[in-house]
Amino acid sequence: MARIAVVAGDGIGPEVVAQARKVLDAVLPGVQATEYDLGAARWHRTGEVLPDSVLAELAGHDAILLGAVGDPTVPPGVLERGLLLKLRFAFDQYVNLRPSRLWPGVTGPLGNVKPGEVDLVVVREGTEGLYAGAGGSLHRDTPAEVATEESLNTRHGVERVIRDAFARAGRRERRKVTLVHKTNVLTHAGSLWSRTFDEVAAEHPDVATEYQHVDAAAMFLVTQPQRYDVVVTDNLFGDILTDIAAAVTGGIGLAASGCINPEGAYPSMFEPVHGSAPDIAGQGVADPVAAVLSAALLLEQLGHTEAAARVNAAVAAELAGRTAGTVLRTAEVGDRLAAHAVA
Amino acid sequence: MARIAVVAGDGIGPEVVAQARKVLDAVLPGVQATEYDLGAARWHRTGEVLPDSVLAELAGHDAILLGAVGDPTVPPGVLERGLLLKLRFAFDQYVNLRPSRLWPGVTGPLGNVKPGEVDLVVVREGTEGLYAGAGGSLHRDTPAEVATEESLNTRHGVERVIRDAFARAGRRERRKVTLVHKTNVLTHAGSLWSRTFDEVAAEHPDVATEYQHVDAAAMFLVTQPQRYDVVVTDNLFGDILTDIAAAVTGGIGLAASGCINPEGAYPSMFEPVHGSAPDIAGQGVADPVAAVLSAALLLEQLGHTEAAARVNAAVAAELAGRTAGTVLRTAEVGDRLAAHAVA
Ligand SMILES: CC(C)[C@H](C(=O)O)[C@@H](O)C(=O)O
Ligand SMILES: CC(C)[C@H](C(=O)O)[C@@H](O)C(=O)O
Repeated sequence: MARIAVVAGDGIGPEVVAQARKVLDAVLPGVQATEYDLGAARWHRTGEVLPDSVLAELAGHDAILLGAVGDPTVPPGVLERGLLLKLRFAFDQYVNLRPSRLWPGVTGPLGNVKPGEVDLVVVREGTEGLYAGAGGSLHRDTPAEVATEESLNTRHGVERVIRDAFARAGRRERRKVTLVHKTNVLTHAGSLWSRTFDEVAAEHPDVATEYQHVDAAAMFLVTQPQRYDVVVTDNLFGDILTDIAAAVTGGIGLAASGCINPEGAYPSMFEPVHGSAPDIAGQGVADPVAAVLSAALLLEQLGHTEAAARVNAAVAAELAGRTAGTVLRTAEVGDRLAAHAVA
Repeated sequence: MARIAVVAGDGIGPEVVAQARKVLDAVLPGVQATEYDLGAARWHRTGEVLPDSVLAELAGHDAILLGAVGDPTVPPGVLERGLLLKLRFAFDQYVNLRPSRLWPGVTGPLGNVKPGEVDLVVVREGTEGLYAGAGGSLHRDTPAEVATEESLNTRHGVERVIRDAFARAGRRERRKVTLVHKTNVLTHAGSLWSRTFDEVAAEHPDVATEYQHVDAAAMFLVTQPQRYDVVVTDNLFGDILTDIAAAVTGGIGLAASGCINPEGAYPSMFEPVHGSAPDIAGQGVADPVAAVLSAALLLEQLGHTEAAARVNAAVAAELAGRTAGTVLRTAEVGDRLAAHAVA
């Protein structure tokens, strides 16, 4: 039976995770969930972000379900670097998978894009690039201060995530991979990414390919999101592009993600793209759909394909049935989704 | 009399620059323009990108009007780094100014945003960050290859562009500056940017401020572009965000930019945000509005405020008069704009 570690976290995290667990329990009876108290509250209470002992315990699970971490009372970077990114790096979650669909029933901001027309997935690199933490500063707080951030890219890291993107594209209908980078400015990393992309592409003659600069891709995600199938890109570009993709498909309230270690050497982690949203926390009005869709990605990763499909179908029904202006109650949405997923 | 260097460049560059010159000649009779042959064609012919002698000549002008450089036959980076970025850096054009307005008559992609509602300007840093060219690679073309790109940020560079943003905001109606960065991940550069921002903000109590992570800003530019007035950000974030801002206000066909050295120690450079668009080059169908609006920014920078206002009014009339489906002819648009600007 699947052993899941649950990090509900801060703000609306616990509210939406509770619904994801409802749905998981419904479609996979007997799933074992262990809760881990990590996030802003623990940091305030104890000064701890992610003790080594907890990291070791998490490693013993099949997957991690994460709500949201972060709070304005914690200095920037403490929880992001110390917890979220620490987990992604420690567990070598090099595929940060972010699907975006414009679901029937959802009105996106784009006037000329109809539900069903957008169905893309961004395969964002998760363990390298500007997220490596290779930066520093000198002469801090003086007029001579200089601060650096270094993007580190290895053939190893670039090749494995590109391979994953091609494998995914091969299983999809349109079989297309778009590489996004900024090869005309970031010439060293850009060259590594595009040479590796071309080599892997040569092994996949059945998959169509294209290249776009990140600025152009950001634009086309707004003007023609329909054109994308699988997008592969680096860590920072992926961070930005997936928020645009979420925005054009109805907002981060619906955006799921998986931080995946495809080999299964470490647990993969599943989290809604939205943050802790302290402004609406505790009111029971957060949309749990992103957390529930993240649970569906978790089920898929653990091989429970049929259960994942039932959760996706429940979400489709929920979204198709929403009418503008109805007030959303987090727990009620969770109840409906759980009921639908087992019906 | 103003002395302008004109770099028409590649693809549609010469076509749109010709219209910008028509308009400049109309509103500022006697302007002296000298053409410089730079871009893909010269590189193919001579192997030269930007000879030092040409750089020295350009330095003797009051401003540079640039069309577009780039062609698929030139390896990535050669013209971008060797010409465009070389000019921005050599002439210390640290304010890369990119206004975005949703002009009446223009239908943007966002269903719920009305013409007139969006009027923002991105003040993009132009001489630092990941554009500094501080990167390299090791073990190239082997499984051990590593490629780096370094973002360099100085107090000097960050402070001056933030000061420029606040000064601009002080002259605008809404008086608001949004800092965009990624302080939760790029903690060193992010800290420098946000400490400097807070210090400069304290000197401008009349200007409202906010901070957003780049991923959130990318999203809000799509869902609520109305919320922005002045946005200040680093070189790469600015590259991406300005393409989103262009997309939501009718496309890069309308997006103008100025690479400005505010002190006037070097010439500033004005260029449409769109590229050379080789697919439509030579057909006379490129929209010259972005080039003409860039010429208006040039006029403003040189103190010809009234002439700039007349060009903007001509563009407003042109865009308000466009009807869907009409085929656009580059030269005719230029004629109409020039005629309107002097009427
Ligand atoms: C919170 C932050 C560190 C994180 C990221 O930048 O990856 C978030 O924006 C995301 O996309 O999951
Ligand atoms: C062509 C490229 C070097 C340039 C940039 O990245 O600055 C362009 O995208 C722009 O925005 O002017």
